[in-house]
Amino acid sequence: MNNFDFCSSTYFAFGKGKEKEVGKLVKKFGGSKVLIHYGGGSVVRSGLLDKVKTELTNMNISFIELGGVKPNPILGLVYEGVELCKKENVDFVLAVGGGSVIDSAKAIAAGAVYDGDVWDFYDKGKEVEKSLPLGTILTIAAAGSEGSGGSVITNENGMLKRSSCYDVPVAKFSIMNPELTYTVSKYQTACGAVDIMAHVFERYFTNTEDVEITDRFCEAVLLTMIKEVPVAIENPEDYGARSNIMWAGMVAHNNICGVGRGQDWASHRLEHELSGMYDVAHGAGLAVMFPAWMKYVMNHDVNRFAQFAVRVWGCKMNEENPEETAKEGIAKYEMFLKSIGMPTRFKDIDAKEEDIPAMIQKILLYCSSVGNFVKLEPEDMEKVYKLAL
Amino acid sequence: MNNFDFCSSTYFAFGKGKEKEVGKLVKKFGGSKVLIHYGGGSVVRSGLLDKVKTELTNMNISFIELGGVKPNPILGLVYEGVELCKKENVDFVLAVGGGSVIDSAKAIAAGAVYDGDVWDFYDKGKEVEKSLPLGTILTIAAAGSEGSGGSVITNENGMLKRSSCYDVPVAKFSIMNPELTYTVSKYQTACGAVDIMAHVFERYFTNTEDVEITDRFCEAVLLTMIKEVPVAIENPEDYGARSNIMWAGMVAHNNICGVGRGQDWASHRLEHELSGMYDVAHGAGLAVMFPAWMKYVMNHDVNRFAQFAVRVWGCKMNEENPEETAKEGIAKYEMFLKSIGMPTRFKDIDAKEEDIPAMIQKILLYCSSVGNFVKLEPEDMEKVYKLAL
Repeated sequence: MNNFDFCSSTYFAFGKGKEKEVGKLVKKFGGSKVLIHYGGGSVVRSGLLDKVKTELTNMNISFIELGGVKPNPILGLVYEGVELCKKENVDFVLAVGGGSVIDSAKAIAAGAVYDGDVWDFYDKGKEVEKSLPLGTILTIAAAGSEGSGGSVITNENGMLKRSSCYDVPVAKFSIMNPELTYTVSKYQTACGAVDIMAHVFERYFTNTEDVEITDRFCEAVLLTMIKEVPVAIENPEDYGARSNIMWAGMVAHNNICGVGRGQDWASHRLEHELSGMYDVAHGAGLAVMFPAWMKYVMNHDVNRFAQFAVRVWGCKMNEENPEETAKEGIAKYEMFLKSIGMPTRFKDIDAKEEDIPAMIQKILLYCSSVGNFVKLEPEDMEKVYKLAL
Repeated sequence: MNNFDFCSSTYFAFGKGKEKEVGKLVKKFGGSKVLIHYGGGSVVRSGLLDKVKTELTNMNISFIELGGVKPNPILGLVYEGVELCKKENVDFVLAVGGGSVIDSAKAIAAGAVYDGDVWDFYDKGKEVEKSLPLGTILTIAAAGSEGSGGSVITNENGMLKRSSCYDVPVAKFSIMNPELTYTVSKYQTACGAVDIMAHVFERYFTNTEDVEITDRFCEAVLLTMIKEVPVAIENPEDYGARSNIMWAGMVAHNNICGVGRGQDWASHRLEHELSGMYDVAHGAGLAVMFPAWMKYVMNHDVNRFAQFAVRVWGCKMNEENPEETAKEGIAKYEMFLKSIGMPTRFKDIDAKEEDIPAMIQKILLYCSSVGNFVKLEPEDMEKVYKLAL
């Protein structure tokens, strides 16, 4: 196990009706003038936004609004939010929505108290040293942004999708009511599930030895997802399934499953260019990239992939030929993806082989290789992309 | 899944050499005058205490000391610590040791800023509303006190062992260097392991439905312990085993394994009277009580015990007779306890059948029944104790 520092300081208020505590929680964490940040019409239509405003008003907390966040949130709207916060002396940012909204809110919270360009945190890897306090009301189980320091923003100028991950813009509180995810479509539920499982894979496939406790935590999340996701897709209002998935999404990415171990993140980098170029859901892009990545890197540590197959997918260990077991695990994962309606190939998302060089070029603007479990050079990236054709 | 609030705000600095960061961390959390609280001679002999003093001095942090904490920490020393803090204007309590030291330090930290009697927090269930900030340097993997709000103190006046569990005296930081546990004896290592697994059992055996994610987290800790504890007992300087056990001990009790589910805690109550009366190690007492409790309550939910047997102990499910599977799981747990040198019966710890009524009487001073998975009335308590004979 590697040395590590870990602090997951977010206050989680989880369960039915918990959104009613938003006013109390904003006050607890020092907010008096709030920017409510949200996406499209669903939080309006569902009445959630009105509820939030009522609760804030009841606690004598004033607020302004900025809606319009779309999947793959863009820098333009972040700039708008930053300006708004500065102009209106906002002292608290409240994200109401899914990962895109929370990521955008994190950027705004950091940018609002930064003298330079907020894009520095994403493009230049500049560390976020301070931010406005942030709260979230989560409406989609997927990105885990409600409990993590991560944020992914796309700069429309060149469609550059970049991430920032520091401790500062971690939410002070996150309200997680599984009922709020009842209206998430089957497709988006599946995309979210893929994202959650991918956050675990990035941590699970490691070269670090002696990591049994986090191996088991990773497997715990995956086993939960395998059981609960089909239930939630079959019956969107199954509270048990929705609640297990929602909490799994948080623990998959607040790093309790990843402490003390090297992590990979190549597939996320490869996927970012895919969804950056085609504007496909992140989860769908990951469903295309991960099986390909697994096949490409499997022989780097067959035993780890065999363990994955046995512990997560219930495969029988083939002691004489662990490679067969490893392959079987990957095949079962791919079958699971298909069973929940996910794409697994370029053609399923209308991605094109001829765009591969351009995607690699975009990655190379940022770094010369990706991944840690296996370091992928440009020629490897090409091979992984091609395995996804 | 039940509604819940969860916040585990401790900053964990984990790994080799991390105790060198103590000065930096005390300063980060606002300490300038520290009470160093510790137990017997081991932290002196090992040189750890000197290292800590050097690091504090290097950061221009002044300190005073209070040693002498013993297993089953007593109220008398807590009073002494509280007086010392008030008299010397201490603004930070640093626990250097295991669960007993940390529990004692929590009581001191809470008592130092309380006008009444600190025992109120334990005997009367009074909520701790504020405390001095607390840091820990952990030297034994067992109690999980480094990441929890819990604290158990024994009042020598009547040998009343009582617990307090609120959010306030949670450590601001905990330094966890697995190397510091190399000198923990085989017996104490096993006692710690029993305690860690017991913290999971108290959460695992629940009546709450739809708790797959926390079921799996509980099982993750147990599977890790089953693998790593024998390794650490065989080779006390196995860093991999020690590090997995140390982190497992924290997650077993910071409630990440217990959120959203009813918890039991009968066995802990029954055990407290055992170790309160005989001054036996808490872990050894739990090793005696838990198999007995499991046998007594098993039929309340055979399927849960069968799941425990299959997922944790690798038993084959007997679909026609799940009770047999459930029993097999309990038997395997008992065999595991014996294999790591733990007592499992009253006679192994020189406890006496004739003391059972007195132990039950002490429990009844505090509450009329114990447990939640199964509510144990006095007559049930007697039967459980007798199953441990």
